[in-house]
Amino acid sequence: MGSIWGNHLKISIFGESHGPGIGVVIDGLPSGHALDMDAIRRFALRRAPGRTPWSTPRQEADVAEILSGVYEGRISGTPLAALIRNTDTRSADYRELGLKPRPGHADLTGMARYQGFQDPRGGGHFSGRLTAPLTFAGALCSQILLAKGIRIAAHIYEIAGIRDEAFNPVQPDTGRYAGLAEKLLPVLDDAAGQAMTEAVAAAGQNGDSAGGMIEAMIWGLPAGLGDPIFDGLESRLASLVFSIPAVKGLEFGSGFAAARMTGSEHNDIPLLQGKAIRFQTNNSGGIQGGISNGMPIVFRAAVKPTASIGREQTTINLATLSEDRLAVKGRHDPCIVPRAVPVVEAAAAVFALDLMLGAGLFSAG
Amino acid sequence: MGSIWGNHLKISIFGESHGPGIGVVIDGLPSGHALDMDAIRRFALRRAPGRTPWSTPRQEADVAEILSGVYEGRISGTPLAALIRNTDTRSADYRELGLKPRPGHADLTGMARYQGFQDPRGGGHFSGRLTAPLTFAGALCSQILLAKGIRIAAHIYEIAGIRDEAFNPVQPDTGRYAGLAEKLLPVLDDAAGQAMTEAVAAAGQNGDSAGGMIEAMIWGLPAGLGDPIFDGLESRLASLVFSIPAVKGLEFGSGFAAARMTGSEHNDIPLLQGKAIRFQTNNSGGIQGGISNGMPIVFRAAVKPTASIGREQTTINLATLSEDRLAVKGRHDPCIVPRAVPVVEAAAAVFALDLMLGAGLFSAG
Amino acid sequence: MGSIWGNHLKISIFGESHGPGIGVVIDGLPSGHALDMDAIRRFALRRAPGRTPWSTPRQEADVAEILSGVYEGRISGTPLAALIRNTDTRSADYRELGLKPRPGHADLTGMARYQGFQDPRGGGHFSGRLTAPLTFAGALCSQILLAKGIRIAAHIYEIAGIRDEAFNPVQPDTGRYAGLAEKLLPVLDDAAGQAMTEAVAAAGQNGDSAGGMIEAMIWGLPAGLGDPIFDGLESRLASLVFSIPAVKGLEFGSGFAAARMTGSEHNDIPLLQGKAIRFQTNNSGGIQGGISNGMPIVFRAAVKPTASIGREQTTINLATLSEDRLAVKGRHDPCIVPRAVPVVEAAAAVFALDLMLGAGLFSAG
Amino acid sequence: MGSIWGNHLKISIFGESHGPGIGVVIDGLPSGHALDMDAIRRFALRRAPGRTPWSTPRQEADVAEILSGVYEGRISGTPLAALIRNTDTRSADYRELGLKPRPGHADLTGMARYQGFQDPRGGGHFSGRLTAPLTFAGALCSQILLAKGIRIAAHIYEIAGIRDEAFNPVQPDTGRYAGLAEKLLPVLDDAAGQAMTEAVAAAGQNGDSAGGMIEAMIWGLPAGLGDPIFDGLESRLASLVFSIPAVKGLEFGSGFAAARMTGSEHNDIPLLQGKAIRFQTNNSGGIQGGISNGMPIVFRAAVKPTASIGREQTTINLATLSEDRLAVKGRHDPCIVPRAVPVVEAAAAVFALDLMLGAGLFSAG
Repeated sequence: MGSIWGNHLKISIFGESHGPGIGVVIDGLPSGHALDMDAIRRFALRRAPGRTPWSTPRQEADVAEILSGVYEGRISGTPLAALIRNTDTRSADYRELGLKPRPGHADLTGMARYQGFQDPRGGGHFSGRLTAPLTFAGALCSQILLAKGIRIAAHIYEIAGIRDEAFNPVQPDTGRYAGLAEKLLPVLDDAAGQAMTEAVAAAGQNGDSAGGMIEAMIWGLPAGLGDPIFDGLESRLASLVFSIPAVKGLEFGSGFAAARMTGSEHNDIPLLQGKAIRFQTNNSGGIQGGISNGMPIVFRAAVKPTASIGREQTTINLATLSEDRLAVKGRHDPCIVPRAVPVVEAAAAVFALDLMLGAGLFSAG
Repeated sequence: MGSIWGNHLKISIFGESHGPGIGVVIDGLPSGHALDMDAIRRFALRRAPGRTPWSTPRQEADVAEILSGVYEGRISGTPLAALIRNTDTRSADYRELGLKPRPGHADLTGMARYQGFQDPRGGGHFSGRLTAPLTFAGALCSQILLAKGIRIAAHIYEIAGIRDEAFNPVQPDTGRYAGLAEKLLPVLDDAAGQAMTEAVAAAGQNGDSAGGMIEAMIWGLPAGLGDPIFDGLESRLASLVFSIPAVKGLEFGSGFAAARMTGSEHNDIPLLQGKAIRFQTNNSGGIQGGISNGMPIVFRAAVKPTASIGREQTTINLATLSEDRLAVKGRHDPCIVPRAVPVVEAAAAVFALDLMLGAGLFSAG
Repeated sequence: MGSIWGNHLKISIFGESHGPGIGVVIDGLPSGHALDMDAIRRFALRRAPGRTPWSTPRQEADVAEILSGVYEGRISGTPLAALIRNTDTRSADYRELGLKPRPGHADLTGMARYQGFQDPRGGGHFSGRLTAPLTFAGALCSQILLAKGIRIAAHIYEIAGIRDEAFNPVQPDTGRYAGLAEKLLPVLDDAAGQAMTEAVAAAGQNGDSAGGMIEAMIWGLPAGLGDPIFDGLESRLASLVFSIPAVKGLEFGSGFAAARMTGSEHNDIPLLQGKAIRFQTNNSGGIQGGISNGMPIVFRAAVKPTASIGREQTTINLATLSEDRLAVKGRHDPCIVPRAVPVVEAAAAVFALDLMLGAGLFSAG
Repeated sequence: MGSIWGNHLKISIFGESHGPGIGVVIDGLPSGHALDMDAIRRFALRRAPGRTPWSTPRQEADVAEILSGVYEGRISGTPLAALIRNTDTRSADYRELGLKPRPGHADLTGMARYQGFQDPRGGGHFSGRLTAPLTFAGALCSQILLAKGIRIAAHIYEIAGIRDEAFNPVQPDTGRYAGLAEKLLPVLDDAAGQAMTEAVAAAGQNGDSAGGMIEAMIWGLPAGLGDPIFDGLESRLASLVFSIPAVKGLEFGSGFAAARMTGSEHNDIPLLQGKAIRFQTNNSGGIQGGISNGMPIVFRAAVKPTASIGREQTTINLATLSEDRLAVKGRHDPCIVPRAVPVVEAAAAVFALDLMLGAGLFSAG
């Protein structure tokens, strides 16, 4: 299986890229929140195709139709289902695609998993398009969290080796980080952003693609959330973030850099701010023993370069069982990192609302 | 909660470091396998304290008593429970510990999570000692997998910035990798191992500690295992690996390095070996779209430096609500990376057996 | 929560009676089965309103649109979502309904559960209409099971105290039982059916309603399915059957009658038929220790009388906080037992396919 | 699998009748409750063998050792594991038992489920002895619930056709019902109890056994607990009650009698008691739409007659594959209904605490 996530909030995602539609069922939402549908649309727009500096802006978002779980504009508490129709479902000739698996895609693994009965068109259920329902769910959860003072932000941390300024893990600059959602290229350092844009354009002109990293932060969560061992915060969030296609690495706080630190450098020293316990540093990313410590939760995800590239590649021909050549046709986004930023935020929001519900911090039944 | 993991195999872990005992219940095991208890003991011994070059070898393993699920030496198929008694349960004066939380530990988060009712002695349920039941479970799963030709190996990839030779992700050297389990310091390059030993000894003499990285590999798994989206292989394995204390980062295949590669570099090109589909490279770590592609599954975990260090640190005093100083007493292991190697292997084994059961590749009911 | 069921097959149901639509996501289906959509429509038609001898036949089934999980007419293996649009969504004046809870309905409990934010129109998420997605799922599962030789049948066992002939629990009459699905009133004894029809008509004319019992049988399942203790067959099937609105009792095999039998009467004696192990009787309903014994699985569900009745009843007025009178308007079905028969079959089918998948008897991944 | 139950509280049971021990892991308990171990022992004693009027009183309870999750006498909140050692683990000759399956037992189904590798001694994992860990868990949950004013009682409703007085489902007589736990034969009407005792003694002298029914009630729960559809209260409680060996039927409120009532008889009419909403009757057993309505939750379970009987029965010989005769040796309890009463109460307690935790009515994390 694999389409269901959550301990207290259950998210179930369905759909294929070129089938009738894709969607999500969200079960366990707290009742009563008045939905801001405009905010959800704006959130979804950030993930929409054609919205990067290196591509023609198309500005059309996938519009989700809410099928259930909302009554008179408020969340009713029963399962909320949302449907996004696929508009591009022409029955193109995908036979070549079925015969010549695209390197870096799930064409071969999907075939092995479903004995060849899977929908291969546009990657089917494995398509990056399936992040749209997750983004919808995250946009919705974000709103509910914001009403409790919990904020989430993410930015491009790196593209093609060019690095943005890092988030301040101890003292988030709430106004500045909130502004990232308004940017076409969500970076803190616009000069770095300009260099990224140029590097991606160069890769694209070369028939190639670029990868990068995304940094995200959740702040405003109380201390004491989560569970030890298998349901620690890192485990829960990792299971969600690694479900985003192209993510191949994840780290919390100092992450991989911690491997080269000493204990005296890495240990976060507690201090009192009034009666609140805070920490001088945040190398742990806000998590100790799998439980939140009240500091911002900080993590970084590595995104591999786009698998679809313009230049011809070697593959195998499943009909002739011999080596063959393949040129992936159509327009490809030479770097999907900017579009993945709201998806990572969405994952963080679903994770955080699930946590809050588990702690009984909403009056969920 | 958090003590239960698995889709098809369910692992439930319990215990506190200084309580009567720790243990595990494993439900869903395939019936019929004849247990090699010696092999399980040898596996457990690799995790035992005092078994590194920089410490006095103690060579005593925690002996697990099997309480159920085994009949006449074979796995019966009903839940298998194992108990490891704690021998060091003296009622020392832990009051200071409760009052002065140790930096880098879960003392404060545990207190927030359980409103102060948690067992604080030796870290309680958050203790690294709780990896012993997971290691037992993994040792047992490894045996069952090996009988199906599925192998798992892990080694120290890096300590204190000193790097070992990497695994060959395309063509595992089965004999050589199997030998790692016999080594006191499981590295491929013994010269690097010697340098690691010296670096750790230096950190320890300095009242400090070191972190590192562990690389692991699972090979022999068929293609087509796993599920898309939330139950992809990366998601499942990550939820388990991040449950190991001190792990703060995880990457698959090229991982974070993929962020700086181009698509033409990163895409693994398929090729035919007889009738089998293989790949020229293994940047994806054996996983595409969350599903196994038949190549080795390769991952690396970042381990933070040991939080318990000899030198005095600043903390807060919860009685006086003021800054205080703390020296963590007792002998501390200045680097837990070697002892974490079998734990990572155990996590990989539990993960792999759960996958195989999910695919109906054992006659489980 | 509550909208998700299953160990190996996961069913997630959403929707409200008067919202945009209701539906189901089914995850974990084995790939490759060619769908017979006509058979699914015929199955759904049996549950459709207005299809009993005591009401004007309307013969319109709810048509489910498949949104995902089917490719070129076959089950692809990825989540299958189906949507049934609600056509009767006029914004009638439900304010009275909100203020005067209907006796026997979930109006008050829904209000308590969702703090008054639930959709009250037509019972909202608690409406019997929500059995339509379950029926769709069951119709689909039935087809897949039939292809493996597993059959399911159900009939009205009793209405208003008038009893039908019972199923033969040892030797099912496959042809005769299969014919039940073709009948307007699914009974084995048509004379009893005629008496039931008259009793229900009389109750309806009296502004009242009738309840009854449904008997169902699954045959063709192998021995050895299920698990001891919490996932025994009775536990699994009960959790599904009790999710059907109006079901207030459930028994397996001899059920409540077993309470008055002696051990020597109740024990099913094994016997050999060729090399197969069968039993002389089937008092256990095909289940011992929670595990299937290869005999038909037989169970009976008690269905309470329809809560909506024509005659005036006492209730409370939530605005004035005083006693009030309520007459439930509109046409009511004075007995829903016949329409519940395919729903019980559907529950049995979902249960049985989940069991078969758990035993690895399909090549599910 | 099958050894794990619960949405918010997770119960995992392990063990075989004649293995080293049986036990339970309980995860998700709210922290802070001071355990009354004496009360737990008294609760366990009610389930202990040899404690009925028709058998020699042995008065020894199985003593559970708590392995984790309790610190300084209070529940810590981390998983609580308890172990009950088996004292009768002699390696008797069970070969005949393996060859001649006992009618009415899970000998054949266990063999089919585990391919013959299951522990057959004393029924192994299928033994009624496995209700001891559930009883321990229930005793513990009962205490926590009682501190919140939630009470549970159960009594023998019927044995061998002789019926006790029923509980008052609208107005529980708290003092009188609490006294049931003190009785050797937990009935309200001692004359009926005397008749039951004589009927059971007669069955036993005849080499036979008797079944019966148990009625249970939970009161003090708030309205609004539970979830619609698959996680309704009936579904959740049924999955737990049917996990008790020998239970073959279950009904809520009027249950099967509702099948013969009219809607005007069955509908529970709401009324105001001060500001509280109550109901005139309780035919629904306190549950509407799967959600609690604030009235007592009332249910009845049918218990089949003891399968082990003194008189000789026909069975098959698995070695010779021919009909054979079997006399089940040893002392058998001719009626297990009295000992099942505390087990049903325990199931109700586990269910009720899980519900309360799900509603956030404890400060669980």
